[in-house]
Amino acid sequence: MFESLPGFREFYPEDYKTRDYLFQKWRSAVESVGFEAYEGPVLEPLELYTEKMGQEISDQLFHFVDKGARKVALRPEMTRTLGRMIAARANALKRPIKWYNIGDHFRYERMQKGRTRCFTQLNVDIFGEAGVLADAEAISTLVLVCQSLGLTSDHFYVRLSDRDLWVSLMEGWGIPAEKQGEVLSCIDKLEKQGESKTINNLSSIIGESAEPLFEKISKLIGLKSVKAIEQWVDLEFDEQKRQNIQKRLGECSLLLESLDTLGCADFVELDLGIVRGLAYYTGFVFEAFEKGKDSRALAGGGRYNNLIKSLGGPDMPAVGWGMGDVTMTDCLVENDLLHISEDQIRVFAISFENTRKQALRDITKLRARGVSAQFSYKSGGFSKQLKEANQKGCSHALIYGEDELARGEVIIKDLRKEKEVSIPLQDLETYHFE
Amino acid sequence: MFESLPGFREFYPEDYKTRDYLFQKWRSAVESVGFEAYEGPVLEPLELYTEKMGQEISDQLFHFVDKGARKVALRPEMTRTLGRMIAARANALKRPIKWYNIGDHFRYERMQKGRTRCFTQLNVDIFGEAGVLADAEAISTLVLVCQSLGLTSDHFYVRLSDRDLWVSLMEGWGIPAEKQGEVLSCIDKLEKQGESKTINNLSSIIGESAEPLFEKISKLIGLKSVKAIEQWVDLEFDEQKRQNIQKRLGECSLLLESLDTLGCADFVELDLGIVRGLAYYTGFVFEAFEKGKDSRALAGGGRYNNLIKSLGGPDMPAVGWGMGDVTMTDCLVENDLLHISEDQIRVFAISFENTRKQALRDITKLRARGVSAQFSYKSGGFSKQLKEANQKGCSHALIYGEDELARGEVIIKDLRKEKEVSIPLQDLETYHFE
Repeated sequence: MFESLPGFREFYPEDYKTRDYLFQKWRSAVESVGFEAYEGPVLEPLELYTEKMGQEISDQLFHFVDKGARKVALRPEMTRTLGRMIAARANALKRPIKWYNIGDHFRYERMQKGRTRCFTQLNVDIFGEAGVLADAEAISTLVLVCQSLGLTSDHFYVRLSDRDLWVSLMEGWGIPAEKQGEVLSCIDKLEKQGESKTINNLSSIIGESAEPLFEKISKLIGLKSVKAIEQWVDLEFDEQKRQNIQKRLGECSLLLESLDTLGCADFVELDLGIVRGLAYYTGFVFEAFEKGKDSRALAGGGRYNNLIKSLGGPDMPAVGWGMGDVTMTDCLVENDLLHISEDQIRVFAISFENTRKQALRDITKLRARGVSAQFSYKSGGFSKQLKEANQKGCSHALIYGEDELARGEVIIKDLRKEKEVSIPLQDLETYHFE
Repeated sequence: MFESLPGFREFYPEDYKTRDYLFQKWRSAVESVGFEAYEGPVLEPLELYTEKMGQEISDQLFHFVDKGARKVALRPEMTRTLGRMIAARANALKRPIKWYNIGDHFRYERMQKGRTRCFTQLNVDIFGEAGVLADAEAISTLVLVCQSLGLTSDHFYVRLSDRDLWVSLMEGWGIPAEKQGEVLSCIDKLEKQGESKTINNLSSIIGESAEPLFEKISKLIGLKSVKAIEQWVDLEFDEQKRQNIQKRLGECSLLLESLDTLGCADFVELDLGIVRGLAYYTGFVFEAFEKGKDSRALAGGGRYNNLIKSLGGPDMPAVGWGMGDVTMTDCLVENDLLHISEDQIRVFAISFENTRKQALRDITKLRARGVSAQFSYKSGGFSKQLKEANQKGCSHALIYGEDELARGEVIIKDLRKEKEVSIPLQDLETYHFE
């Protein structure tokens, strides 16, 4: 028998219900913040991803040559497509531009828990606003999305960091601009690679022993408030070098204050250990993590003020994040938060040789007014048809007995409460099932 | 600037609204008939499509070799994936199985009106029922979907045909079984290729002049009722040869009668000119067409009783159809049937330096109870913020004036009716916007 490809999922109706539940929750939460849905192509020119993407994503591309000799790739992420769309209409679109997408993405990854080769991601982005209120809204939307799924501050938190703060610190330490990206990349990998490997890497970047630099970086990552960082900075740098750093710390304070006002104080933690792997990030970056031993990353994002210009558009500040369906579904399952209501109205008509035509006519009318209504294709007896109604999870049976029909009536049986009423046939058209 | 690939669409929010409107209508209509949603992989093993697909689809495949040296293809249609899923769980699934999918498909086609290289299709299928009631339900669902979009019998009709009837006719004419597929293919192309080319093709298949055969085929395609066909058959064949044909005509009558009961009499026309290109069809086949000069095909499908077995599953009768988003959207636009309601509740908070915190707190609460609520990232004056609220199509403004706030009140301004009321702040949490 044919099989599906490794890493590509099939959703049978019971699995699709979970998927749909997640997407509907995503959708209502972000729409309550005023984000509008868009969609872009799943297949894109390869060149869209070959510049400045970070090595990891480039290695994982599904790419090929199409029948028109074009180099093409299945999209590994949405931001490049989105950036191109924004760039193309940058002047016509009213700012701030608040858009979201729920779409498929493709990465040729090693198979493991939480990883598939095709996954669906919620992408949420704000364009045209450089101020911290946009960062605050992006992060508070992320918190709202998690809350709408039933997650509380017992389940998750958001680690907030600032690449601009790191840049101003590196300037203070005299690390030249062209080496700052590599240092940031070391900090990004610190948690995974550990102390000695990080020191080695840093040393080879700055060309001298990096133990003192590593100590400072570690110390900073351990400081969890703007105030603590400010105090450390006061001791570390002279007044002139302090200025840029303090300015940036002021922005951090403002952002944290706005997040507090937006009800996110219990969810957000300053943590300079977060840097984000993708090369296009600037300014604030953040990642949502599960609490507890697994501590899976649930979502991540940040500022990317230079992307639109690099795609041929105007200067356009941007901030956004993505959340994958695979890890989030795992998280909801393990926290027993997938409560999908099955309490829908579904009608099943039970009829017999002489009453079937009436039943089918009525079903047609019910469907036309949006009521889910079915009937058996088989001419079985009453109990066989009732069994089918129950198997299909129907809430009501319409029973078309010959005697009732002769009186111009039909029986409505509530299958959940085992109650039944008899009503005149003509009342069915306006009958309210509940 | 980078561009998207030819034939791949971008949906800006205003385009996405149309897309979403269509999908929601599709979804509610088929769910009212009791179909359940499923989804399968967009990328599949190439071999799934290389057997018995019909040459046209094979030529249009987007296929390549992945990083694991697997031959893979973007799915050109859903039925193979669906068939595999059904085959894998055939014994566990309760019959009849009624499933639908709204998903992307990929075909490398010549670009023209109504054709893109990626399109979204609604697929609706019933498994496990061989009787005509399943065909009737499939076709009546197609009619219901079109009706739910505002299309009437002035706009479209369904041409119904029967491959089994053709097979029994060809047997009556003595055309050997191994040549029947080719003859069906000629009938399928008759409308496009015209009389003389069809006669030539038929002649080369049957090995003698096909003019008499062509005359008979043309005559039959012109007959639009079972009764007319029956009368013709009575003259054409002797009693023994007639039996199978008459049996099949009886099935046609039964199907038409059921469609009548299901409210489809005005929409369905018997038309033996329809054969369908895909090789896996058996039994009844049908296509929905627009009326009028363009007469675009809006949807098509039919019986495919052998597919599940050919994919390794058990004997499992099946009937289904597909409807593409591109032609359907064109049809709705041209008939002025895309009336997308913009009448949603969207709240915009207007606040000032000393009242902003209160505004942001209230907005957070509104969002938490699902009300769409926004605010300006800029600290502009009243009229600037009001302008932004209108640009975003908001229905209500919450006005946080200093005086009102001092009194513990907020003004709610209905932006559509230019009416306003002042309410106590604490009432906002339960205020019903309408």
